[in-house]
Amino acid sequence: MAMEKTRPGLTQGVGPATERGERTRRKLLAAAEVEFGEKGFHTASISSITQRAGVAQGTFYLYYRSKEEIFRALVEHMNRTMRRYLSEAIEDAANRAEAERIGLEAFLRFCREHENLYRIVMESQFVDPEAHRWYFQTLAGGYAERLKAAQARGEVRNGDPYTQALALIGMAFFMGKRHLIWSQDCVPEADALAAASEIIQHGITPDTGKPR
Amino acid sequence: MAMEKTRPGLTQGVGPATERGERTRRKLLAAAEVEFGEKGFHTASISSITQRAGVAQGTFYLYYRSKEEIFRALVEHMNRTMRRYLSEAIEDAANRAEAERIGLEAFLRFCREHENLYRIVMESQFVDPEAHRWYFQTLAGGYAERLKAAQARGEVRNGDPYTQALALIGMAFFMGKRHLIWSQDCVPEADALAAASEIIQHGITPDTGKPR
Repeated sequence: MAMEKTRPGLTQGVGPATERGERTRRKLLAAAEVEFGEKGFHTASISSITQRAGVAQGTFYLYYRSKEEIFRALVEHMNRTMRRYLSEAIEDAANRAEAERIGLEAFLRFCREHENLYRIVMESQFVDPEAHRWYFQTLAGGYAERLKAAQARGEVRNGDPYTQALALIGMAFFMGKRHLIWSQDCVPEADALAAASEIIQHGITPDTGKPR
Repeated sequence: MAMEKTRPGLTQGVGPATERGERTRRKLLAAAEVEFGEKGFHTASISSITQRAGVAQGTFYLYYRSKEEIFRALVEHMNRTMRRYLSEAIEDAANRAEAERIGLEAFLRFCREHENLYRIVMESQFVDPEAHRWYFQTLAGGYAERLKAAQARGEVRNGDPYTQALALIGMAFFMGKRHLIWSQDCVPEADALAAASEIIQHGITPDTGKPR
């Protein structure tokens, strides 16, 4: 299982370690998110990223050595931002089933607020396969750990928690594709969420013995 | 729901409509599958495809006008080949739950036999977004129709069948990534399939009222 453990960071922190330096780094990442999302990796340029960020082109190189490096840092940044967002969304959930329901809604909301997420994460498969793998293995590994803990509390059905995590990630991933990318012209998200909740409720949580 | 209906073909049949012409077309597609899978779209070349296929370069143009056109035809061909393979695998299943279990195993087997499938389908998102969308909407649309019919027979839980289809596609998609691409170093596929079957059994099929 060694390969499936949550991996440490992909990139090393660089650039001035001051508050102002951190602000500049965030501006560059936000600009890169728009630039890579709109143009794709190959057409994107460092000069366009610095223009969008409103910083001098020379400043870029205090933080990143190349377009490849900021792309990789962006994949890592989006992974951490999303995981933090989801953790905060579910922290008051009464149990795992409620956490799943709230987490799925939060995931779709996060994707709506980060409309370039899908393109960037999917393009990383070709631009930087190691970053792509890291993105999903970190996500699935952390998710599996939570499910395993919930199994120990009797809130989740027994069975390989990594497979359970992939099922839940897969459902969320394709629901995002359907509702945010493929079409506005599908069943209301509320109906889809209701159907998804049913699958999660019965598929992941153990039988309660109570009549349903 | 118009956008979610199964769409007609992406490409028009071209080239000599003889048995020999059909054989040449299949040789070109098989060669393209290896070429695009190994090199990616941008590095792949028509001359290398015809070399792999063992046909003259001029022959290529009897069938396809460009690298873009054979790429699109390949995405369509892989979609149809996989759907036919899965249909045949499940045709003797006693009910939908059994069809799902057999279908998931067949999907992983198909991906193992077509090791370039993931790369090609994922790269289509950037090379030919319409073909990418067609690939998944055709898959999900056909799947949802089967689930809807199974709902009418009482074999599948009520709820939006397209969401159910996406959940099942998502689980299969990420299991394929895990077992065929990410790592050889994970739980045995049999254990993962057992966990997946539990999720499908309880998540998708209705409560029987029988004790489990």
